[in-house]
Amino acid sequence: MNNDQNTQENLDKLIDKIKDIDIAMMTTMDDDGCLRSRPMRTMQTKDNGVLWFFTGYESAKSHELRHDAHVNLSYSKPSDNLYVSVSGKATLSKDRAKIDELWNPAMKAWFPEGKEDPNVGLIKVTIEKAEYWDSPNSAVVHLYGI
Amino acid sequence: MNNDQNTQENLDKLIDKIKDIDIAMMTTMDDDGCLRSRPMRTMQTKDNGVLWFFTGYESAKSHELRHDAHVNLSYSKPSDNLYVSVSGKATLSKDRAKIDELWNPAMKAWFPEGKEDPNVGLIKVTIEKAEYWDSPNSAVVHLYGI
Ligand SMILES: Cc1cc2nc3c(=O)[nH]c(=O)nc-3n(C[C@H](O)[C@H](O)[C@H](O)COP(=O)(O)O)c2cc1C
Repeated sequence: MNNDQNTQENLDKLIDKIKDIDIAMMTTMDDDGCLRSRPMRTMQTKDNGVLWFFTGYESAKSHELRHDAHVNLSYSKPSDNLYVSVSGKATLSKDRAKIDELWNPAMKAWFPEGKEDPNVGLIKVTIEKAEYWDSPNSAVVHLYGI
Repeated sequence: MNNDQNTQENLDKLIDKIKDIDIAMMTTMDDDGCLRSRPMRTMQTKDNGVLWFFTGYESAKSHELRHDAHVNLSYSKPSDNLYVSVSGKATLSKDRAKIDELWNPAMKAWFPEGKEDPNVGLIKVTIEKAEYWDSPNSAVVHLYGI
């Protein structure tokens, strides 16, 4: 098995682990070095290692990501003893075609005006490392990038 | 209501939110600036805003915390739509009395030799900020330190 194949298999496994966990806690670093997290709905997981989220284009987390693009996504499913850590880098955009592709009426909770709201933004996370744990006493499984 | 009272009430509320969630995802920054998280069992939550965890005294996360003490703890209970972010600073120790106080046989999963294992260490997190979300579309509630 060559490396590329190995990488793709691990990425597929990662996507399989997180596909049923809608909400991730997204951790970013603020200007003071303080680490903050907030629940975020994963809108799309691509098999090339890219994850998409909606965000307020002007928001605390967008500000933090412009300052330091590192992000951690933790996916927890306590009922299955499943915990996944994804480390990556985030970029912000207002890509119109992507907004149209991913828009979901549930997003109106955050953008009452709908997808035309000028503050609708996207966070694209490119995965750099990933690890998971899937039993109460399990050691970590390094999935990707380590 | 004076500020101290307010602070204590918020801290009590925070502790109440996380008391049934055994496992937190603890995020730290590694030497490359990359953010990593891993599941950790909360051993004690004190009403003065201190949380205790067991760790390998020599372990990747201990190394990361010596380098940068900032930590985020995310507590997720998807079945209740409850998500809590705790930001704080961590200190490492091998405090014998505290190890004896907190030791629990379940920790043998990580320290098969038991609490005399020379690598048994403690992480003490002092809470600096906390926020929570407790319904599918809820705005953040700033609980503490913000
Ligand atoms: C449910 C669960 C609970 C865990 N609790 C702890 C814990 O309390 N302390 C600990 O050191 N590791 C715990 N682990 C293992 C860690 O997640 C991690 O794999 C280990 O501490 C090494 O992390 P590090 O290499 O980042 O230091 C737990 C793992 C799982 C799956």
